[in-house]
Amino acid sequence: MKVKNKKSRVNSNSPIGIFDSGFGGLTVFKAIRKLMPRENIIYFGDTARVPYGTKSADSVVSFSAQISEYLVSKKIKILVVACNTSSALALDELRRSIKVPVIGVIEPSVNAVCSDDRNKKILILATSSTIKSRAYSKQLRKKNKKLLIYEKACPLFVPVIEEGCAGKNFAKQIVKEYLLPLKKKKFDAIILGCTHYPVLKKVIKGVMGKKIRVINSSAQAAAAVYEKLSDLELLNKSKKGHERFIVSDDPQKFTALAGELLNIRIKNLKIKRF
Amino acid sequence: MKVKNKKSRVNSNSPIGIFDSGFGGLTVFKAIRKLMPRENIIYFGDTARVPYGTKSADSVVSFSAQISEYLVSKKIKILVVACNTSSALALDELRRSIKVPVIGVIEPSVNAVCSDDRNKKILILATSSTIKSRAYSKQLRKKNKKLLIYEKACPLFVPVIEEGCAGKNFAKQIVKEYLLPLKKKKFDAIILGCTHYPVLKKVIKGVMGKKIRVINSSAQAAAAVYEKLSDLELLNKSKKGHERFIVSDDPQKFTALAGELLNIRIKNLKIKRF
Repeated sequence: MKVKNKKSRVNSNSPIGIFDSGFGGLTVFKAIRKLMPRENIIYFGDTARVPYGTKSADSVVSFSAQISEYLVSKKIKILVVACNTSSALALDELRRSIKVPVIGVIEPSVNAVCSDDRNKKILILATSSTIKSRAYSKQLRKKNKKLLIYEKACPLFVPVIEEGCAGKNFAKQIVKEYLLPLKKKKFDAIILGCTHYPVLKKVIKGVMGKKIRVINSSAQAAAAVYEKLSDLELLNKSKKGHERFIVSDDPQKFTALAGELLNIRIKNLKIKRF
Repeated sequence: MKVKNKKSRVNSNSPIGIFDSGFGGLTVFKAIRKLMPRENIIYFGDTARVPYGTKSADSVVSFSAQISEYLVSKKIKILVVACNTSSALALDELRRSIKVPVIGVIEPSVNAVCSDDRNKKILILATSSTIKSRAYSKQLRKKNKKLLIYEKACPLFVPVIEEGCAGKNFAKQIVKEYLLPLKKKKFDAIILGCTHYPVLKKVIKGVMGKKIRVINSSAQAAAAVYEKLSDLELLNKSKKGHERFIVSDDPQKFTALAGELLNIRIKNLKIKRF
């Protein structure tokens, strides 16, 4: 029913709505753009209230609902919650309250882990709020009770990445501080449970060993969006999609980070304050 | 006139209102409590929107005005803006819009630097927004045109401190990353232009040399509050002051950080959401 309601108001030309607490969700934007070059996309970064990862569940749910309603008012055909903290804490509430399909970044990674039999011992890296919510481990255990799951909050990764310091020597030291004590457990796979973390992927592999499988929640989410739109016959057939970016604060920093760290050129950036 | 208005509504028993973007302003609270044990104090930490240091001027002014109005509604006799970013960007606006005296954390440090003739070459450490605002250097230059002033934004200090990592080896590496290239300039004094930074004072002195004078903006602000209340004959003569703490999000983290890093026991913490 929800989908019917939605299809009556939107069509394949309607945009995909993506939101994140800030710039990190651009890794999801990038994965979606690569997979679906014909889609129109609206990206919202809540740069006035970033980061979400250290805020309470109540605040994260309330911020997420506010942004989702705003994006729905822009006639999006699907909502992508490109923020792990928000996917962990607000997804059920958003699915109840808004009328378009909602894709988070957790479920797709959980499916990717469980579809590979070699994955028996899993390490989840995420922000404090995501880890506290236990969203990844609960969903993983629901699918496969035999998995050995370890979780580690890495709250300094986001500021280090946002300050453009992922290549500095101290970034490696911070990664070691968090991960070296866990190396001896010999994990089969690591889930990068925060959309920023792919920026540190090489450093993480350097510390944990090249053989470990790294599940990138951004790429998995993009694949799930493709599948959903395909199911709903809402994939765009037009020649080339356009994109709009909206932030709640400091457009300069957002544009600079997008360019420096993700090689994304931001044009026509708008500000929307709540 | 403002003061007259104010005196008619408040008395010496009225509380001192302090606000900060989060927990950092507790260094100002602690300095005020030490200097004025008889004062009643209300402290507000905007933990839902922390940090301010990486947000735009517009957002910082708007958040600060909202909190100040809230504190004035609690009948405070003086407002202490215990956040350097907010003192840099919002102080003039607050002084125009609210009816109690407003003390920031910048002016008192500027006065402390300029009252010591040995201070000729000064280094200011602060968040990106404070440095961008040039609030410290403008005020210093106004008082003493001959000063040689250097400014350095240290955006990773706050997250490192808030994650309780000031004692880790990588914290020293981050301090070195920011400060070692500046050591050869042989500064007479450093202003810690962010209320969090006193937590890293020892590490900073370790990198910059023991002889350098470190101006702590929290202690200087407390002295300015004392002087102002004394001038207005509003110092409290009662036996022992009480204190209230209000945050906009996540009381557990606030309480834990206050205890671990500043040895402040928080009781009766309330949440106020905007």
